[in-house]
Amino acid sequence: GAPDKESVGRLSMSFGDRVATTSQPLVRRLLRLMEEKRTNLCVAADLGTARDVLQLADKVGPHICLLKTHVDSISDFTAEFPKQLTELAERHNFLICEDRKYGDIGSTSADQYSSGLFSVSSWAHLVTVHALPGDGQLTALSDRAAGAERGALLVAEMSSKGCLVQPAYTAAVVKMAEAHPYFACGFIAQSSVSSDPRFLVLTPGVSLVSTADGHGQQYSSPERAVGERGADVVIVGRGVTRAEDPAAAAREYAQRAFSAYLQRLK
Amino acid sequence: GAPDKESVGRLSMSFGDRVATTSQPLVRRLLRLMEEKRTNLCVAADLGTARDVLQLADKVGPHICLLKTHVDSISDFTAEFPKQLTELAERHNFLICEDRKYGDIGSTSADQYSSGLFSVSSWAHLVTVHALPGDGQLTALSDRAAGAERGALLVAEMSSKGCLVQPAYTAAVVKMAEAHPYFACGFIAQSSVSSDPRFLVLTPGVSLVSTADGHGQQYSSPERAVGERGADVVIVGRGVTRAEDPAAAAREYAQRAFSAYLQRLK
Repeated sequence: GAPDKESVGRLSMSFGDRVATTSQPLVRRLLRLMEEKRTNLCVAADLGTARDVLQLADKVGPHICLLKTHVDSISDFTAEFPKQLTELAERHNFLICEDRKYGDIGSTSADQYSSGLFSVSSWAHLVTVHALPGDGQLTALSDRAAGAERGALLVAEMSSKGCLVQPAYTAAVVKMAEAHPYFACGFIAQSSVSSDPRFLVLTPGVSLVSTADGHGQQYSSPERAVGERGADVVIVGRGVTRAEDPAAAAREYAQRAFSAYLQRLK
Repeated sequence: GAPDKESVGRLSMSFGDRVATTSQPLVRRLLRLMEEKRTNLCVAADLGTARDVLQLADKVGPHICLLKTHVDSISDFTAEFPKQLTELAERHNFLICEDRKYGDIGSTSADQYSSGLFSVSSWAHLVTVHALPGDGQLTALSDRAAGAERGALLVAEMSSKGCLVQPAYTAAVVKMAEAHPYFACGFIAQSSVSSDPRFLVLTPGVSLVSTADGHGQQYSSPERAVGERGADVVIVGRGVTRAEDPAAAAREYAQRAFSAYLQRLK
């Protein structure tokens, strides 16, 4: 980013004030939503049936800015699912991120994005993308978005044990986003990979219970993620989906993450 | 690999002789198939409907060792599709690789692999995996394969323009495969990333017509891929799928790739 952007950096600006720093429509919409709804919580709806995901979305909807899906883990997907999810997103005022982690050449990822049974581009405001294959995916996905309010989050860091992401890789991902701000909306990361206020930093693996899952996932608290490590949005999965009362858990995560954000502005 | 394995390396050994170097059932099966059927051609069935993929598989089946799919680009997928594809694979004696490029934490990729509408683990002998998130995916996918003859190809290099893969990354991918030989069957790569005869090297972007696709894909001939760059298997997409006669095109690619392989042994 330009020096003047750096001096008034992402971490010290309110979500509302950051709206004016970008012309990317989806980032503007999400920043406004976060400011007005007072939530920077994304719930990872990692459940195996359409009914369970929709029920969860209805429960946690009032507390979240974003719902993150893995549509290819839903055993009974039909075209009804994105339709109903979109209705819930409109009713509760949240956006949808399909966490597909596209990682192919542009033309292939574009087909996976805009066609096939899932037709992801027709309903997912955001998708996650691995920068590894180069920036061909960003131009190709953006083409297929065809003017709709769409965007991508680039995976800049990962929380899993033994991951191969190195600082030089992360720097290249950030540079790629800076070269494609019309579609790149931010990063999936574990730390403040960019101080550019145009980009959102989302941190997965956030939980109040620090545990490992046996397959290399590592956890961090909302305060640590937002206050110490510089996340704008915390992504909470099992901490909400496995709670006895997912709505109450989402409310608590949202309050703690938003408090940590307000604290950061001081 | 051990020094004795290096001295009698992958490039100078026949597919048949390499069977004895590994206990991975799927690699053994594929090497035998390639030797007996005299083909090291994989066709990338990048078509948008089940009917088109199945028709293509039926036409090119006699000439290939492997058919590569992108199941999430098929607009009319039903559970009938993998069933019929499996029948064709058995009839024509080829294996199936779902080119999903898994790139998430282990538990998520495992759900995407073994559940959801596609139930990939139930029909795809091979899947492609990005090593970026660490090796948690390999243990998790292997768990879900539940003893079936399954395996993964790790993406060690990519052919797309501006890709972020560096030599140190490729070296780490190879090391990861060496640590997980019970599930890692080889690599998607553009060069001879390993001389270990247990691992297959598959090279995409192979074509007799050298063109770019406008989204960063770059092409190489079968002779160059196998003879100069060390591929075991060439992956051909548009060169076959867009040919007037896909069966004839597949036959030609297979002959040229297998001749280049025989030439390499001399």
